[in-house]
Amino acid sequence: MRAIWARIVDLGAIAATRPADVGGQQLPFLVGTLATAYLMAANLSACAYAGLTSGAAHLIEAFGDDFLKREMMARMYAGEWTGTMALTEPQAGSSLADVMTRATPREDGTYLIRGSKIFISGGDHDLTDNVVNMTLARIDGAPPGIKGLSLFAVPKRRYENGTLVGNDVHVAGAIHKIGWRGLPSLALSFGDEGDCRGWLVGKPHQGLRYMFQMMNDARIMVGMNGVATASVAYHEALAYARTRKQGRPIASRDPNQPQVPIIEHADVRRMLLRQKAIVEGGLCLVAFAACQADVAAHATDAEARRRAAHLLDVLTPVAKSFPAEWGFEANVLSVQVHGGYGYSSEQLPEAWLRDQKLNSIHEGTTGIHGLDLLGRRIVAEGGAPLRVLLEEADAVIGRADRAGVDAAWCLAVREAMARLADLTAHLGGIGLSGDVEAMMLHSTDFLTVVAIVVVAWLWLWQAALAKEALARGTAEEDFYQGKLCAAQYWIWTELPRVTHLAELCRSGEDSYGRMRDGWF
Amino acid sequence: MRAIWARIVDLGAIAATRPADVGGQQLPFLVGTLATAYLMAANLSACAYAGLTSGAAHLIEAFGDDFLKREMMARMYAGEWTGTMALTEPQAGSSLADVMTRATPREDGTYLIRGSKIFISGGDHDLTDNVVNMTLARIDGAPPGIKGLSLFAVPKRRYENGTLVGNDVHVAGAIHKIGWRGLPSLALSFGDEGDCRGWLVGKPHQGLRYMFQMMNDARIMVGMNGVATASVAYHEALAYARTRKQGRPIASRDPNQPQVPIIEHADVRRMLLRQKAIVEGGLCLVAFAACQADVAAHATDAEARRRAAHLLDVLTPVAKSFPAEWGFEANVLSVQVHGGYGYSSEQLPEAWLRDQKLNSIHEGTTGIHGLDLLGRRIVAEGGAPLRVLLEEADAVIGRADRAGVDAAWCLAVREAMARLADLTAHLGGIGLSGDVEAMMLHSTDFLTVVAIVVVAWLWLWQAALAKEALARGTAEEDFYQGKLCAAQYWIWTELPRVTHLAELCRSGEDSYGRMRDGWF
Repeated sequence: MRAIWARIVDLGAIAATRPADVGGQQLPFLVGTLATAYLMAANLSACAYAGLTSGAAHLIEAFGDDFLKREMMARMYAGEWTGTMALTEPQAGSSLADVMTRATPREDGTYLIRGSKIFISGGDHDLTDNVVNMTLARIDGAPPGIKGLSLFAVPKRRYENGTLVGNDVHVAGAIHKIGWRGLPSLALSFGDEGDCRGWLVGKPHQGLRYMFQMMNDARIMVGMNGVATASVAYHEALAYARTRKQGRPIASRDPNQPQVPIIEHADVRRMLLRQKAIVEGGLCLVAFAACQADVAAHATDAEARRRAAHLLDVLTPVAKSFPAEWGFEANVLSVQVHGGYGYSSEQLPEAWLRDQKLNSIHEGTTGIHGLDLLGRRIVAEGGAPLRVLLEEADAVIGRADRAGVDAAWCLAVREAMARLADLTAHLGGIGLSGDVEAMMLHSTDFLTVVAIVVVAWLWLWQAALAKEALARGTAEEDFYQGKLCAAQYWIWTELPRVTHLAELCRSGEDSYGRMRDGWF
Repeated sequence: MRAIWARIVDLGAIAATRPADVGGQQLPFLVGTLATAYLMAANLSACAYAGLTSGAAHLIEAFGDDFLKREMMARMYAGEWTGTMALTEPQAGSSLADVMTRATPREDGTYLIRGSKIFISGGDHDLTDNVVNMTLARIDGAPPGIKGLSLFAVPKRRYENGTLVGNDVHVAGAIHKIGWRGLPSLALSFGDEGDCRGWLVGKPHQGLRYMFQMMNDARIMVGMNGVATASVAYHEALAYARTRKQGRPIASRDPNQPQVPIIEHADVRRMLLRQKAIVEGGLCLVAFAACQADVAAHATDAEARRRAAHLLDVLTPVAKSFPAEWGFEANVLSVQVHGGYGYSSEQLPEAWLRDQKLNSIHEGTTGIHGLDLLGRRIVAEGGAPLRVLLEEADAVIGRADRAGVDAAWCLAVREAMARLADLTAHLGGIGLSGDVEAMMLHSTDFLTVVAIVVVAWLWLWQAALAKEALARGTAEEDFYQGKLCAAQYWIWTELPRVTHLAELCRSGEDSYGRMRDGWF
């Protein structure tokens, strides 16, 4: 990891998307995200040190004072120190309202920090001299709940008289994760000796708001983790299926004939095409979301910024969750294509399978993203985010129509979009009537509906581009024919699930709603 | 494992279902299977030694001569030696037609064996003095393909002058499996020194037929592996969800109120109820199949035996695959319910997840069971097996109706059964017209359809029993209410998938059918 870290720093990966005046390369977020995908496919853990450091430094860049920028942000962007996100506590996993770490003001303007954090990725290591933990804590007297949380920079070591000395931050335990083995996940204890200093970032009681401003980016990066992990496994399965000979065609099983590569079996191609549809659909989704982040932040036109911000709002939970959930399924298929060899740790697919599982858990579980999408994002501002999404999809359907994509595919996507619009209006109406629990009962199914429909729209887009390329003549005909097959697969195999799932959400099917603890 | 093995032998688990005259307890297969589920939930690997030994001894019991029964079978049933199934070779994983291990007759009636086997579970160890490998090999001059395979007992050690000496069987390598870590999976090399003796079991060239007669039982046991592995993980998730406090009800998020156990969140109950529906549906399926095996073998009435044999034929690939595929999903949910803690090897759910993955690969992959079900079993004898299945389901639907189960549930199952019958007739017709590839294109989807429908029928049965119990009064009302919720869940959440999947099979959707190697 030491060798990789030096290369990542040299590459400028940490500040790649940041402005030049903080040492960045000013790459669009889209470009940074896509470029990082290659590194993620090679080593998720190594990328995570860079990503966490970038995120921590970015928080200070956005909200910190000049002292913190000079002393901490600059060193993180330069790769001299690394950073972490220290939110989770043992008694408050997903429930940040219950964070208990305390911060007591000191006379010099810093705070005494005391508390326990858990699952802190990269929370200690010796790749660099120091680790800055961006820590949520509660200033003495702060209100309960999320409104009382402040953000602190709590380094592992602090300068005293020009020398780095310990800052009373201790490793209380290591989580033995099943994947991401190159990145320690630690329990950290702050202030066991009463001497842990934290520097307030921004204003008191604004900690969660600050964190959330960074979280959209982080969630898109988690989405790319998922895509990259599914992608590398897909390509490994493809290479295996092309070379592994086993069995004979179903219609001619003469044992005197040689065996054929397993890619010639239809069911193996099913498993490969499903992986391709998930991986390339997910890549398109995450890239599209990253692009919206760029436009929302930098477009000169206010209307373009507004539309991009709406799209980003709806797409973020999907871009985070789709690669985690469907990507895991793709990783399972990669193991399955490898047969008995896939069940062995001498082959890589099982390692990617283990890596992938984290993505449905960290940075908000899939269930929490379902609640966030349905309960907040898609119904915000009277449904404006959904309207923008529908308009964008409509434009793509029109383009696909004109490009000569099968009219039945276009119609299927159009009807699915209409179904999504109806369903959202229906559930939003239930929410407005005051029955939030009924509205949210199938929030995870709702997330599934949105994910499948959005990815279908993006596959239709890819099909339109393929048709356009084939019509004008291309040297990459194979590439575009593959795109058309994958689009066809998604639209006829996955998209129809939406009919039943939307009905489930709408009907309020109440089996687990009414299920009681004692009945299990 | 040494301590466990002694206990398993004491328990009589190896010959539990065998006749008294070979030292067995004559338990019905149903009882043996259900009893073993408890052991499997505790330690799959330990059970596998017993199951493999029982299967190997059973082959000799059914087809071997008195010498083999006395010298090998008896020692295996007594737990003095263990047994294995040595089918797979590196160049012939699922394709047994390509098995190349040779057998050359010797003058004393034994054979010289030479060849390589791989993935031999329990192929060597020091729990017992000897291991008998039930080995598929080709006698010199035998025809190619599966018709030239003979079955041999090839022990690790053989008696010479009353002493056990090496039989030229060597461990060529160990597979580092991702689960089932207590059971070595080995590459074995036979006859490196030209001195490996094998004893022919039964007649020449009948090896695969003999093996297949054992395989139905083995597949049902694999199904129970899957059920047990999903079950223990489900109960662990349930216990965790009842004690882990996190967050507050969606409608009242006052941070001054205490956090609630996560089972109070609807989405957590969704994950738990899905696990319950899979686990208890799978348990019912495997138990029902095991019961048919008993009736098919032992009923005094020929018609009862015939019907049970038909049911067993159709149910075996489902009983093997459903727990592997849906059970894996249940294991994933158990990890997810545990959140970040689930991603740690300090908790057991991830270990069960790894164990479960094997079940979709060994004893025939899921894809192969799809081919077997659609291509052979369900269309055999002019569709007689399916007709029996439909009649059985019909009887259950009638009973559910009379018991007062919601008429809509009964109708949903009835319609799904009709859909399955139509689809099978349609696909069978395509096959009869000669286009086997078109018939089989969606064979895995077809297996999915059958699995979902069969489990829905079995859930309706459980709902009927629950209604009957509640009507007559019961001290276990909670238990039966839970059954009703799970039945409702399956019928409204999983069963509707069948509409789309059946349409997919029927339409012959050809995305992966026409996809070419170069297009990926």
